[in-house]
Amino acid sequence: MFEAKLIEIGQRAKQAARLLAYASTESKNNALLAMAEALLKNQEEILEANQRDVQAAEEKGLKKSLVNRLRLTAASIAQISQSLKEVVALRDPVGEGEIWTRPNGLRIQQVHVPLGVVAMIYEARPNVTVDAAALCLKSGNVVILRGGSEALESNKVLARVIAEAAEASGLPGGCIQLITETSREWVQKLIRMNEFLDVIIPRGGAGLIQAVVQNSTVPVIETGTGMCHAFVDRDADYEKAVPIVVNAKTQNPGVCNALETLLVDEGIAAEFLPLIGEELKKLNVQLKGCPRTCDILTYSLPATEDDWKYEHLDLILGVKVVPDLDGALNHIYQYSTKHSETIVTENYSRAQRFLREIDAAAVYVNASTRFTDGGRFGFGAEIGISTQKLHARGPMGLKELTTIKYMVYGDGQIV
Amino acid sequence: MFEAKLIEIGQRAKQAARLLAYASTESKNNALLAMAEALLKNQEEILEANQRDVQAAEEKGLKKSLVNRLRLTAASIAQISQSLKEVVALRDPVGEGEIWTRPNGLRIQQVHVPLGVVAMIYEARPNVTVDAAALCLKSGNVVILRGGSEALESNKVLARVIAEAAEASGLPGGCIQLITETSREWVQKLIRMNEFLDVIIPRGGAGLIQAVVQNSTVPVIETGTGMCHAFVDRDADYEKAVPIVVNAKTQNPGVCNALETLLVDEGIAAEFLPLIGEELKKLNVQLKGCPRTCDILTYSLPATEDDWKYEHLDLILGVKVVPDLDGALNHIYQYSTKHSETIVTENYSRAQRFLREIDAAAVYVNASTRFTDGGRFGFGAEIGISTQKLHARGPMGLKELTTIKYMVYGDGQIV
Repeated sequence: MFEAKLIEIGQRAKQAARLLAYASTESKNNALLAMAEALLKNQEEILEANQRDVQAAEEKGLKKSLVNRLRLTAASIAQISQSLKEVVALRDPVGEGEIWTRPNGLRIQQVHVPLGVVAMIYEARPNVTVDAAALCLKSGNVVILRGGSEALESNKVLARVIAEAAEASGLPGGCIQLITETSREWVQKLIRMNEFLDVIIPRGGAGLIQAVVQNSTVPVIETGTGMCHAFVDRDADYEKAVPIVVNAKTQNPGVCNALETLLVDEGIAAEFLPLIGEELKKLNVQLKGCPRTCDILTYSLPATEDDWKYEHLDLILGVKVVPDLDGALNHIYQYSTKHSETIVTENYSRAQRFLREIDAAAVYVNASTRFTDGGRFGFGAEIGISTQKLHARGPMGLKELTTIKYMVYGDGQIV
Repeated sequence: MFEAKLIEIGQRAKQAARLLAYASTESKNNALLAMAEALLKNQEEILEANQRDVQAAEEKGLKKSLVNRLRLTAASIAQISQSLKEVVALRDPVGEGEIWTRPNGLRIQQVHVPLGVVAMIYEARPNVTVDAAALCLKSGNVVILRGGSEALESNKVLARVIAEAAEASGLPGGCIQLITETSREWVQKLIRMNEFLDVIIPRGGAGLIQAVVQNSTVPVIETGTGMCHAFVDRDADYEKAVPIVVNAKTQNPGVCNALETLLVDEGIAAEFLPLIGEELKKLNVQLKGCPRTCDILTYSLPATEDDWKYEHLDLILGVKVVPDLDGALNHIYQYSTKHSETIVTENYSRAQRFLREIDAAAVYVNASTRFTDGGRFGFGAEIGISTQKLHARGPMGLKELTTIKYMVYGDGQIV
């Protein structure tokens, strides 16, 4: 029964994808503007649905930070609507590419084209429903949305409003579809619908992502987990090191590009650790240190293996004293999830070795890991941060939602 | 027991990858030249081992075309050695990229880096052992090779000779490893070694590729299956159409970019089919036609559903009369494996529609599908032809064996 429904969604998506693939940028932009308009016009209905979600979440005793992430206001709807207009301003990668001519006169054009049908599986964040749909649509992709169950009422209204607006503006029906069943069975089935889906992008916690990666037969772009390190070298400028560590740890500790482990060169540990410890204490950061760190900072708790291994996503920081750059490289090699790593140093050669030898999506010298973000990298928007190596790595913008095709112009050439 | 051996291979590969990732182009080129030299120096041992493979294959009654593919000669070894020198001449994509500066002064560099550890699973073709190793090495990747069992004796010698040469020239040991066990169990285990492998590239028949795609948990780049179509439009120039169809079908019928189905516009069917039928008959091509085709060409056998669906890889061609371009687009939409498709026409708008609306790695106007090839596209070499959309599509050269990383140069920037 539910299988038939999913297949229907898949078929509609595939049919829409065939047409949306070559919709003009102008028609896609018109749809985005219509969607932005429609969100404002239907604000009341959206807020009512959201109120039901928020109330249910509070009754269920959901964590306050999660309830806040779920809550929409007139201001946040205005902001979501505005963000659609910003997507209009982004350059459409579809149809862009390179061309070259072979000695036999064949002209080969490598052109960006949409992936086709993208399935987004994400947590209870209503804004992602609209953001993901907008980025997929702008890059010519059909999207199937499956958001967290706590946001279902909000998502139902949001998805209906933007899908209707897109269709009314002339795009094919089925461009934006929401799966409204919240049982796990549906997700399990969805991620094996190779016939209808071109890619699955899971966005959210490590559990959600691993569940998709392990069970999907459709290609997945893995996003998220960031076990990020900062190494403060013996030649670090403390006036850079302290703000970088503080910013990377505390500015938004719940996100994937936040700092999880601080590595400090032995040569400066006795001097630097009290400095940074003082600052972090003021901001209520709990330190989990190696034995040497605990010697120097008596208010640090001893770290366990898990502290080096798993993200805290909270005001907790692992701190380890390492003998030198090689010690830092080895620790990172062992524990990194290859998301974002930074070195603070004034030493040219050690900075270059760190950049070269660390295998991660983003490797920094003298900057906070928090910059790993589509907006901050200058891509205008992002659909997620890839931690895999195939297809996309790091912040994914519109271009990462495309593939290529070769258009070859001949005049009768044969081999 | 065999698991421990595989893990040992995986660990050696991963250790080598950490170093090979930033080996200089010069040192990689020196290794390639040493490998080319070593092949010539050890020619006798290679030929002896190959003789054992060929003899066993003949005794087993292997198809003649497969035995020929397996056989090495002094001349073919010289050619393989020469092809290594050609890889030396190719541009190394590692370290190439773009750089931009953000308003806050952060300089962001997007740089190509190796994927890491590549596992190649392929059929009994000894030349692939050397070619694949060379392309992986040049792009900074460690390779684990698993060739078809009929070529095992040849592969053992080839892999040992080139691996020793690479190591002697200064590259880390473990850069090139061959799996010498031929049981299926090993492959099943290999394709689930996510801890050690970054990507698996299967090369060969549809059965081999599907077995890997279905069971692998490591990311796979799918290669190969090409259900390729040619549509001869009512405005086709027959002087182009006949050679293109003949070339695409007969020049090398056993390969993935060979033609499998000919679609002919109804408006010219009575005129064009006898023309092309005559030419194909001379070349011993068996036609499998739709009812209309069988009416016109009485020597055509009736086509079954399977003729539209599966590659023949032989001198057999499906032929179907379609009402018009839309009929051709619909047939291709239904049966294409999205490899290579061509239209023969002098009509501008229909040519443009075909290019735009066909979803395939390579879409041609007035040229043979046989051009879908790394060498013929101008990439210098290829490791395979991707028929998937993620990461790489179409012929894969050295660049497709890399991923990117962002190197970010800061001066104390925080968010």
